[in-house]
Amino acid sequence: MENTLTQANTETMGDAGGDPWLLTPGPLSTSLSVKRAMLRDLGSRDREFIAVTHRIRESLLGLVDGYGSHECVPVQGSGTFAVEAMIGTFLPEDGKLLILVNGAYGKRIARICEYLRRNHQIIESPEHRSVDVLALDKALTADADITHVAVVHCETTTGIINPLGAVADVVASHCRGLLVDAMSSFGAIPIDARRVNFDALTASSNKCLEGVPGVGFCIARRDALRKTQGNSPSLSLDLHDQWSAMASNSQWRFTPPTHCLLALDQALEELTVEGGVAGRGARYRENHRLLVEGMRRLGFETLLPDGLQAPIIVTFLSPADPCFDFGVFYDRLRQRGFVIYPGKLTAADTFRVGCIGRLGETEITAALTAIREVLDELGVENCAPAAGRAA
Amino acid sequence: MENTLTQANTETMGDAGGDPWLLTPGPLSTSLSVKRAMLRDLGSRDREFIAVTHRIRESLLGLVDGYGSHECVPVQGSGTFAVEAMIGTFLPEDGKLLILVNGAYGKRIARICEYLRRNHQIIESPEHRSVDVLALDKALTADADITHVAVVHCETTTGIINPLGAVADVVASHCRGLLVDAMSSFGAIPIDARRVNFDALTASSNKCLEGVPGVGFCIARRDALRKTQGNSPSLSLDLHDQWSAMASNSQWRFTPPTHCLLALDQALEELTVEGGVAGRGARYRENHRLLVEGMRRLGFETLLPDGLQAPIIVTFLSPADPCFDFGVFYDRLRQRGFVIYPGKLTAADTFRVGCIGRLGETEITAALTAIREVLDELGVENCAPAAGRAA
Repeated sequence: MENTLTQANTETMGDAGGDPWLLTPGPLSTSLSVKRAMLRDLGSRDREFIAVTHRIRESLLGLVDGYGSHECVPVQGSGTFAVEAMIGTFLPEDGKLLILVNGAYGKRIARICEYLRRNHQIIESPEHRSVDVLALDKALTADADITHVAVVHCETTTGIINPLGAVADVVASHCRGLLVDAMSSFGAIPIDARRVNFDALTASSNKCLEGVPGVGFCIARRDALRKTQGNSPSLSLDLHDQWSAMASNSQWRFTPPTHCLLALDQALEELTVEGGVAGRGARYRENHRLLVEGMRRLGFETLLPDGLQAPIIVTFLSPADPCFDFGVFYDRLRQRGFVIYPGKLTAADTFRVGCIGRLGETEITAALTAIREVLDELGVENCAPAAGRAA
Repeated sequence: MENTLTQANTETMGDAGGDPWLLTPGPLSTSLSVKRAMLRDLGSRDREFIAVTHRIRESLLGLVDGYGSHECVPVQGSGTFAVEAMIGTFLPEDGKLLILVNGAYGKRIARICEYLRRNHQIIESPEHRSVDVLALDKALTADADITHVAVVHCETTTGIINPLGAVADVVASHCRGLLVDAMSSFGAIPIDARRVNFDALTASSNKCLEGVPGVGFCIARRDALRKTQGNSPSLSLDLHDQWSAMASNSQWRFTPPTHCLLALDQALEELTVEGGVAGRGARYRENHRLLVEGMRRLGFETLLPDGLQAPIIVTFLSPADPCFDFGVFYDRLRQRGFVIYPGKLTAADTFRVGCIGRLGETEITAALTAIREVLDELGVENCAPAAGRAA
């Protein structure tokens, strides 16, 4: 079974090359050409690699229309490294961060503040609700000590999209700084730096940009970035120092993941070919529509109402049918060539299926077929969740 | 010229695939099979990738004979990220670090301590001398507040090898903890964890292990690691937290650079095939011998006496001949398919040539030929350095 599928894979838009398709929040299935871009060894201080770094930084700025006003500062490591670098660099020692939380990644920002010993406060909303813009407005009115606000654009915990524009407007009206974790949205959901007023925003190579994991980046307003000298409690994660060094010699301070950056360079080229953020977003929305419609036909329910759902990753409520066992479901889907993701909710029994990466209608349709087959094998007759749901 | 050489490359032990050979401290020229290992997308929480992580950690422990007594904790990012993670995790807030400095990487540890606001002191030796073991002994006798000592095993600044065993013995005799930056030596110069008493040691994927850059690791005595909970001032770089998480579910806390780890897994397999640390070290020593003999025949002088030189990277004094221009020398060598490295010394005009990576006699001989040709083109008649040298 797996062999048949993997043969098929090489003829579809992606190329899993014998590996299962990754219907996860990342790392994702990337194109073969992105992976093949890594078949080179470049010197990290040689001019050819310097040109790669420059091109990537310019492309990323272009995706948010940030030319002239913003800077792109890359940083080695996972998305969390980039988020920690942003918090440590932009939040001064005497600052205070208000964090809007409706999932694990918002909570992680709070945990970062605990490590960094930075004053912070959270406003928590239920995982299936957007962050609370009215409560934000109130909190900023009430507490003049709050210097910055942090928000997660798309919370991968559930797949919810938070109202970034509204949050940014409120924060700007109070003259505070906004720090955005745009890890799961960047590259597929439009963010216009000329209209959304943020101090800094982070994302990584391996989600909607369809590169491989190993590097993140921060896009920051230049005048906000200029004021951050001396804030960072970490050398490795000091984005101001990284930026200054790059401004002087266009090089990374410390050995960059050269192969990962070659892949990102290629991935950004493929993003352009697909029509940029609009084209990428359109494919993901179609993947999402096919997935949700197909799953609903099978009787599944989504955690979120459609209006709150980003076309990135979907949380489904686990069937109440006693024949459903997530571990077995996962293993058998994997045997059929599809890796899905466990849930990350505190309040409900769920699992997640991603819509992103180098995959389209063929793969989503095949995944739905595999899901139906596995449910049949397990003897699951009813995919409805337990009554009561998460809410 | 470049085309001819790059054709040739594919027939030698490495495969630069059209790119110049990297005679640098890293990233290096890696084997084609190491790069091809990255042509896969694995889910970071899927069992196949979990097995890759497990295999890598075990292999790395095996290289220092650390089974049973030590733990291997990997961390995303460059070597500096791993060193900062080690310092932040192992040096408690009320600790004091004595740093033995004879180059830029020792100084970088001091800079990390400044960022982390950890009490520290340095003993600085000239860049062309080993770190001072007698001064270390005296300092530890004089200052009971010093809890840890840090040393760089091979200082890439010059290529000098520091007396790790002697340092470790002195530190152990004073019952302090030793933290080792083994970035440039690990995998080619033997380190026996049963005989060299260190609390923790760091290295990275992209030097003598001949993987690609993007991940580092720490090898730590288990009983020392156990005591580090709560020390780290960074979430991303908390090695205790990373270790605890891996102990519970064998997974990375945050998205790992999956492709880079697939490359490292393959690179470790190729290290075994080459005869482990002994075999790898023998090839590098032969590369080093050929390089230094050839350069001396051309009239160059090495910065270091042979007894202090590691077979990793060699610092040559720039010729005093006014026809020698490093920028032009570099560019023309690059056109011929060889990337060398500028010097990093404060005290002398130098350049560096690496002996490591997937290259051997063929490439070193070809590099020497290219160097002779470029010197002829430049009209350099005498490669002797200015009188007085660095010392």
